[in-house]
Amino acid sequence: MTDYRRLRVALLGAGAVGSQVAALLRQHADELADRAGARLELVGIAVRDLDAPRDAELPRELLTTDAESLIVGADIVIELMGGIEPARTYLLQAINSGADVVTANKALLATYGPEIFDAADQVGAEVYYEAAAAGAIPIIRPLRDSLAGDRVQRIMGIVNGTTNYILDRMDTEGAEFLDVLSDAQRLGYAEADPTADVEGYDAAQKAAILASLAFHTAVPLESVYREGITAIDKSMMDAARHAGYVIKLLAVCERLADESISVRVYPALIARTHPLASVHGANNAVFVQAEAAGNLMFYGAGAGGVQTASAVLGDVVSAARRHIAGGVGVGESTLANLPIVPVGRVTTRYQITLEVDDQPGVLATVAGILSEGRVSIATVEQTVAGEDAATARLVIGTHKALEQDLSETVDRLAASGVVERVVSVLRVEGD
Amino acid sequence: MTDYRRLRVALLGAGAVGSQVAALLRQHADELADRAGARLELVGIAVRDLDAPRDAELPRELLTTDAESLIVGADIVIELMGGIEPARTYLLQAINSGADVVTANKALLATYGPEIFDAADQVGAEVYYEAAAAGAIPIIRPLRDSLAGDRVQRIMGIVNGTTNYILDRMDTEGAEFLDVLSDAQRLGYAEADPTADVEGYDAAQKAAILASLAFHTAVPLESVYREGITAIDKSMMDAARHAGYVIKLLAVCERLADESISVRVYPALIARTHPLASVHGANNAVFVQAEAAGNLMFYGAGAGGVQTASAVLGDVVSAARRHIAGGVGVGESTLANLPIVPVGRVTTRYQITLEVDDQPGVLATVAGILSEGRVSIATVEQTVAGEDAATARLVIGTHKALEQDLSETVDRLAASGVVERVVSVLRVEGD
Repeated sequence: MTDYRRLRVALLGAGAVGSQVAALLRQHADELADRAGARLELVGIAVRDLDAPRDAELPRELLTTDAESLIVGADIVIELMGGIEPARTYLLQAINSGADVVTANKALLATYGPEIFDAADQVGAEVYYEAAAAGAIPIIRPLRDSLAGDRVQRIMGIVNGTTNYILDRMDTEGAEFLDVLSDAQRLGYAEADPTADVEGYDAAQKAAILASLAFHTAVPLESVYREGITAIDKSMMDAARHAGYVIKLLAVCERLADESISVRVYPALIARTHPLASVHGANNAVFVQAEAAGNLMFYGAGAGGVQTASAVLGDVVSAARRHIAGGVGVGESTLANLPIVPVGRVTTRYQITLEVDDQPGVLATVAGILSEGRVSIATVEQTVAGEDAATARLVIGTHKALEQDLSETVDRLAASGVVERVVSVLRVEGD
Repeated sequence: MTDYRRLRVALLGAGAVGSQVAALLRQHADELADRAGARLELVGIAVRDLDAPRDAELPRELLTTDAESLIVGADIVIELMGGIEPARTYLLQAINSGADVVTANKALLATYGPEIFDAADQVGAEVYYEAAAAGAIPIIRPLRDSLAGDRVQRIMGIVNGTTNYILDRMDTEGAEFLDVLSDAQRLGYAEADPTADVEGYDAAQKAAILASLAFHTAVPLESVYREGITAIDKSMMDAARHAGYVIKLLAVCERLADESISVRVYPALIARTHPLASVHGANNAVFVQAEAAGNLMFYGAGAGGVQTASAVLGDVVSAARRHIAGGVGVGESTLANLPIVPVGRVTTRYQITLEVDDQPGVLATVAGILSEGRVSIATVEQTVAGEDAATARLVIGTHKALEQDLSETVDRLAASGVVERVVSVLRVEGD
């Protein structure tokens, strides 16, 4: 066996991902050494509670509650604690003590990314975070490196497994949101408090990370427009299916015509023929449109302890190779610094479902309000009668319209005498 | 504008990809400089004929027929000439004169990869070849870096656009091979001499490159088993559709149970529900199964001048970043050095179609020959009568069997008195 130089690897956190990383590091030690050109010696695992139950069996002598001592002298620090503090402090300590760092912490990167990347730049360290955007799916290197010579026009990502699982079951089984959610919680696909997933916070963090990479622009989390899926019900699913669409929670990162960008997360209709429509269950996929490369799609498991551990270990091997090769780390490229516009400035197509009085002249009134609001009608269908025989249901597909115009127009429709109820307004993505 | 260090970039070849690379390098010069941290100065383009027509307009003063002078003093050399010589000599000259090299030359890498990688290792240079395996689809970095901490079990790739275009049209239009081929030639999807594509040579080169990366083992092109698609006809397509399959030319790279590997290219049946079945037209996709990451798929344009130029430019930016960061290049990892087995040692499922005498006892005879040959039957269907009323058609689906056993058994079936004709034997992939 080759006699390799040893690199000291410190692991912070031993949850679902951390315990798998520790197990794989030890299980495949020889193979990883051959690939990295260095022996990756796990010198310790920082945990909050030495006696907490673990997903994988870890050697007791590696566990410690003293993260700071562990960080000092480590060549590579893997942060898998999650949350903002103390993860942020530890990562900065690791960088400043000369380590390369690997993290899967999307909340931290979406919030404090620039601070962390700057700190790494100052000392020539590198930050690896393949696991932070789409779990096991390699998307960071493709965006950061493979597409570095291209111009990304748009990313549409299904980046949250929980919501895709819920929407997929609602679609295929005709079930209601709350029923599927409680089932998903029972099966471990959703947390006891599902807010981060179903309200789109998790997807928004990932959208900020993907957009920063794709557009070479620091994208603060606050600039990401966000809607969750809690308002999606069976009738909306049924109507979508009827019209040849499926509803997915999408993270959309878009370069607009004037070289500004928009980053937004919301449930949207996409055509059943679109590659993203066939992403089922808890899987994730990222669809990328680039000027030269055309359409690309990256598909796989977006979460899961062992799957995410794969991405983390790939980063550890990269960090080790760089350590051996020498040279400073490659910093994040944010010099394009494109302006980020609010969602009101975005144009998309919409599907508006209205309950209206079933009387002559109503369609003319509705069409008039839309036209005044600069929203152009592409299709109109009177689908089902309302519960009350005096009302009808109108499904209006629009041409591309400005979100702000659309939003004001919907308000005027709601206030008009002829519309009983605005049943739903959904954006249509992916032409 | 930031005042960047200049890196001298030499381009060898100005064909469909080269002329696009030259155009994009100049068109996006400022943006690329910001991303690379260096100004990428195109110092010359080596061509065979100064007056040949080009896909994009190139400044006459950059063209030269003297490749060797151009290479001397270049920081980055991009080789897009194709073919073995003089590309091999030029690449080695570039490496030995201290340049980093970018190439899209799959024939060269599949044949002389180890020589080129060794030469780069000797001087600490790095070889970038994202465009050599699946055109614009980022697959090299995911395999080389993102999955470096995982164990790839199997790759199934649709890596040749021409054959996928032909098979897809045969499937959707019920057309015959030769009709679609001549149409594909007319439309520019196939070469005047289509041998490299339809006989699987191109796919075999890409399979060798993908398998080398995935299994950290130098895979010589001669060890790749190869069959083309010229024997696929309408009746096989129809039978596949009837049975819920589609026929695709697949590059399969597989880790076997005994830690040997198999690399093979052939037309195979895959279930219509498999993600690869929905790869249409000239698109490519690479489906990867890894121990920890699970199933991943990478999808996009596998060829085309501007698409491939995207992958080449990504490599140029990576090479420039490394140049600026310092340190030696990361070599190819081939230390696993797994044994490569011939196709006879592989087990897959098969679908065997036979024309047999329509007489009592024939099925028993056929079943007996299969059983003696250690080929276990999963399904039997008597589909259509032969042209002659005295014959019937048997479609036999097998359980997993050893290729060598299967092949010998099919020979015995052909020689038996009851089988009029072996219509087809197709492997079934993707369970």
